[in-house]
Amino acid sequence: MRKIYAIGIGAGDPEHLTVQAVDRLNRVDVFFVLDKGTAKADLVRLRQEILERFVTRSGYRVVTAQDPERDRTPPDYRAAVADWHQLRTDVYERLIRDELRDGETGAFLVWGDPSLYDSTIALVEAVLARGTVAFDYEVVPGVSSVAALVARHRTTMNQIGRAVQFTTGRRLSQGWPADADDVCVLLDAHTTFDRFTDQGLWIFWGAYVGTPAEILLSGPLDGSLAEQIRETRAEARKRHGWIMDTYLLRRPQEE
Amino acid sequence: MRKIYAIGIGAGDPEHLTVQAVDRLNRVDVFFVLDKGTAKADLVRLRQEILERFVTRSGYRVVTAQDPERDRTPPDYRAAVADWHQLRTDVYERLIRDELRDGETGAFLVWGDPSLYDSTIALVEAVLARGTVAFDYEVVPGVSSVAALVARHRTTMNQIGRAVQFTTGRRLSQGWPADADDVCVLLDAHTTFDRFTDQGLWIFWGAYVGTPAEILLSGPLDGSLAEQIRETRAEARKRHGWIMDTYLLRRPQEE
Repeated sequence: MRKIYAIGIGAGDPEHLTVQAVDRLNRVDVFFVLDKGTAKADLVRLRQEILERFVTRSGYRVVTAQDPERDRTPPDYRAAVADWHQLRTDVYERLIRDELRDGETGAFLVWGDPSLYDSTIALVEAVLARGTVAFDYEVVPGVSSVAALVARHRTTMNQIGRAVQFTTGRRLSQGWPADADDVCVLLDAHTTFDRFTDQGLWIFWGAYVGTPAEILLSGPLDGSLAEQIRETRAEARKRHGWIMDTYLLRRPQEE
Repeated sequence: MRKIYAIGIGAGDPEHLTVQAVDRLNRVDVFFVLDKGTAKADLVRLRQEILERFVTRSGYRVVTAQDPERDRTPPDYRAAVADWHQLRTDVYERLIRDELRDGETGAFLVWGDPSLYDSTIALVEAVLARGTVAFDYEVVPGVSSVAALVARHRTTMNQIGRAVQFTTGRRLSQGWPADADDVCVLLDAHTTFDRFTDQGLWIFWGAYVGTPAEILLSGPLDGSLAEQIRETRAEARKRHGWIMDTYLLRRPQEE
């Protein structure tokens, strides 16, 4: 029987790995590394650093595969997403079936926490559902990018007794979510916070959180702060060649 | 200058401590232990186990204090909450000012993640705002109870591209939050999921997650499963003398 781990490795600071994650890393025969077309050399290096620092056993293998890119402007959006999911499942199936021998253990290292805006669990389940290769798998939770962000800002995700929503930039662009006073925004390439200036909100923004390149900005969200974050973000993205950022928008409530 | 850490220690599994948390634990002179009136001996023991397992330096002190109970049925709810906050701030102020010498480091150990439905950060900020004792402080993020729950259920918090809301049992009792397809419910002593049976939802429920006493139940939320969770919960609570449970409600979406 093969064994698969989906291991949350935190959002950038190697010290955010849990004791459990370190334990599981040391039981792994094959690490699967899925790379997008865009070469984020910093992230590859960071993952490498994690293995070198925490894996004390030798003889493990690292197998790299190309994670299929999604067609971003398809004629049929729904069909394109389904196709893409099939292509990705093909890749995961091939890795688990062909790169792992019976009795061996493989691992997918997931930035942040595998349960938050990550598709590893869904893809592993899709491979299982195909029934072409038998394996057991375990999810190792991690510190999410949002938990890392608010810890650095020394604030909370929610206000006392209030609700907080996690959503995407795309959804936030449709308006402030009802029934939530705090909103954590992930996957936002379009600085959607721009639409919410001068409405009495606060923003807690961060990029490369937990790494030496970390940038933090926060305060009442007026046009000036929005512009500062936009410019800081664009400049950093240009300098690094990539950016990983997230933010919390807060509508302050009387207790 | 005094130094304070608010350290997330995970939701019950000592292996969920991060490398950073273990590092910080080993810099601490005084651990502050705030106990509610109700003696949850299991939790005290678990915290003790964490210190014994991970702290390699000797000579640290453990200072216990009573965390003031809130008046649950006050004539003036708002005033009572404000009073309670003042009383709690008094306790935190006294601990930091009187139980810590200049140059020493103190720590509050927080179950789960300090940013999610926990008041440690707000109380430390309130002490700082009083200006009666100078100190620096740092927040160490942790694996939240919800991250631990969904990892054990091998599912995600959000569906692809969708929003997930974290809320309380009290708020959920007012109805399903708008604009969210998944809802993580904390602080629910009243099994509020009962109101959402036979609506096409799924529930992922867990108690004592990550501990040897862990109980997990999940499936389509019909009256029979709701009853099973209610009874399991009541029985476990009676047997242990306390319960810590949380759940995710999912409204399945077509991709």
